[in-house]
Amino acid sequence: MTDIESKGSNPVAAVGMQDKERIARAALARLMEPQDSVGLALVRALGAVDALGVATGELSTGPTVEQEISALLVEAGGPSTWVGLPATLRRWAPRVSDLAPERDLETMRRLGGRLIIPGDGLWPEQLEDLGLQEPLCLWWRGHEQPLPPLDRSIALVGSRDSTSYGASVTGDLAYGLAQRGYTVISGGAYGIDAHAHRGALSGGGAGLPTIAVMAGGVDRFYPSGNEDLLRAVATQGAVISEVPPGSAPTRYRFLQRNRIIAALASVTVVVEARWRSGALNTAHHAESIGRVVATVPGSIHSANSAGCHRLLRDGGAVCVTDVGEVAELAGAIGESNSEEKTADAAVHGGLSLEDLILLDALPLRSTSSVEKLTVVAGLSPDAVRAGLGRLGLMGLASSERGAWKRAKKT
Amino acid sequence: MTDIESKGSNPVAAVGMQDKERIARAALARLMEPQDSVGLALVRALGAVDALGVATGELSTGPTVEQEISALLVEAGGPSTWVGLPATLRRWAPRVSDLAPERDLETMRRLGGRLIIPGDGLWPEQLEDLGLQEPLCLWWRGHEQPLPPLDRSIALVGSRDSTSYGASVTGDLAYGLAQRGYTVISGGAYGIDAHAHRGALSGGGAGLPTIAVMAGGVDRFYPSGNEDLLRAVATQGAVISEVPPGSAPTRYRFLQRNRIIAALASVTVVVEARWRSGALNTAHHAESIGRVVATVPGSIHSANSAGCHRLLRDGGAVCVTDVGEVAELAGAIGESNSEEKTADAAVHGGLSLEDLILLDALPLRSTSSVEKLTVVAGLSPDAVRAGLGRLGLMGLASSERGAWKRAKKT
Repeated sequence: MTDIESKGSNPVAAVGMQDKERIARAALARLMEPQDSVGLALVRALGAVDALGVATGELSTGPTVEQEISALLVEAGGPSTWVGLPATLRRWAPRVSDLAPERDLETMRRLGGRLIIPGDGLWPEQLEDLGLQEPLCLWWRGHEQPLPPLDRSIALVGSRDSTSYGASVTGDLAYGLAQRGYTVISGGAYGIDAHAHRGALSGGGAGLPTIAVMAGGVDRFYPSGNEDLLRAVATQGAVISEVPPGSAPTRYRFLQRNRIIAALASVTVVVEARWRSGALNTAHHAESIGRVVATVPGSIHSANSAGCHRLLRDGGAVCVTDVGEVAELAGAIGESNSEEKTADAAVHGGLSLEDLILLDALPLRSTSSVEKLTVVAGLSPDAVRAGLGRLGLMGLASSERGAWKRAKKT
Repeated sequence: MTDIESKGSNPVAAVGMQDKERIARAALARLMEPQDSVGLALVRALGAVDALGVATGELSTGPTVEQEISALLVEAGGPSTWVGLPATLRRWAPRVSDLAPERDLETMRRLGGRLIIPGDGLWPEQLEDLGLQEPLCLWWRGHEQPLPPLDRSIALVGSRDSTSYGASVTGDLAYGLAQRGYTVISGGAYGIDAHAHRGALSGGGAGLPTIAVMAGGVDRFYPSGNEDLLRAVATQGAVISEVPPGSAPTRYRFLQRNRIIAALASVTVVVEARWRSGALNTAHHAESIGRVVATVPGSIHSANSAGCHRLLRDGGAVCVTDVGEVAELAGAIGESNSEEKTADAAVHGGLSLEDLILLDALPLRSTSSVEKLTVVAGLSPDAVRAGLGRLGLMGLASSERGAWKRAKKT
């Protein structure tokens, strides 16, 4: 495991590099708001250390970097034009004098926490699915144990002003999930979030029963009414945030935080939500990166279920009514992977020798013609055509205007 | 409009034909149970008059008719082999001596009703979608007014042992639909069905507010506890059945009856249903002929909503929570309440991310300067000034001599 205390005292160059990277990301996390696309693209282009140099004016760049940023922004689905680096630097400038990454890291140490960055053992790999919007780093306060695999992490989210129905449903789901060894992800807020953390803590055995992803800094347990609860989460699970200690939980950060909750979990369950609710924002984040969104139905006379019903009606959410159904959804993700693998093996096992030879002869990226395949596979044109037909039906080969290739696995 | 009283007294050959057809169908409806595929195929092949002749042994047929029946059965998705006509005739034989179609027609006349058959003005054309399973005829007791177009007919179905939640939801939906001019189709049973008819009667103006499709004969209002209600339905709407007067409502006929409810309506709404419920059978019929299935969510602690949630989870049913959403599904325009809800001022929805950050940075009680806001929001001075201008125009920020604060909500 990497060690943030080793900076300067460790002679191994690689560790020194990782520490530099850590300090740079700590600084950048204070300089930029979450999901600052240009900043994140700059880090992708130059690495965190040089990106910080550019951001603080210590390093200068040429047009190549701007082009690279443009390309990264377009790739991430953004606009093809942006204000340019000089304007961005002016935007960042007011905060440069406030940067004190070592102080922030020291604060975390004092709180018994640490800063984790991509590449660390604790870094949750599923955050990669956020692409350019993957957080720069996570300020981690709590149990130092990696998250379970994606299919064992489930988010339970919902309104702050939960009803007794929402409280009881959330408590039951969280308790049951933790008992089954799942990690319950939520946002540490009042209402559904609190019931989720509390239920998971009471049900949890080994591992991380629950994780609270905060919109503000983890130095402060916010809201204050949840202080005891969040302290317990930090002891048995973890309280994490992408913004440095001391950061206020602004509305913007709440919305950005939701993408982390969504990305950490395989399934996001909205237990109770009004027609317009932050929980729906989390659901949309989850949907946008291909995670499963589920929701609990309730009385149509309850305003606190209107958002859930909206998701059922418009959003393609799955209706769940007990912990077994939630686990099944999460399991379907894990199982579908393993099933696919065994299915693949079975399919290949069931192929005739000729078809297997033909499959091997099919290119993965480029395409091939029937004529070429007769040569590569050593089969007659008729045998190639018949075999391609069979492989096509099995979803193993695809063609476009006579050009054949192996079908991509999904 | 056709007239069943004209038989024998009307010299026009065409009318005589239609009367013969009517009498034949009346007889066949007593001879065969609903959805007797071989019998229905025989009618398709020869017409009702000759089919009756064959069924009663007055006419004999050759292998061509058997082949035609086979083809029709296969076309309807049935098996390619069947017992053959002689065996089928033996099956029908015990009932032949009981046939008295004129008596049944006379009974209907006495009840103020009539028999309708395909081609009649009252015949609901949407029943054609049942294909071979289209009923032979309908015994119609009530208001002699054709059904509205398919997109104005909606089925509300559910459990007999409804809860107060189901009762209130059904009553509201039925009342609202009838008020908007929809015809509410249901099965005349206790529970959800009764609430559907009652609500529609209280909401209905012109037209047919509601239709009860019975599993037994319409001479008897069954169940007896609904007698007054069904009498009112027959006065303002219609009580109909495919089985002749005097027929008992057997379990088999209940299940067959459900396909007629499903086919008459553009949308079948399951309001409350247990995990195993006859209402789900109606939903499956609806789905199988491409009708929309909708369902009302409820508490996950209510066994009477378990079937609804099952439909949401497995059956591709649409979640509906008010009459506007049901009407929207049926194809109505501009009647959705959801639109109203969406229009609920999305104050922050239209803001860019930068403006949202800026709004968060604005103090509520004290004031802030542009310079200070550049630090707090992490934006350039130009961006802060432009953003404040936009927020000011939107009434979200206000300034006094360069001191900015968030505007009070009005």
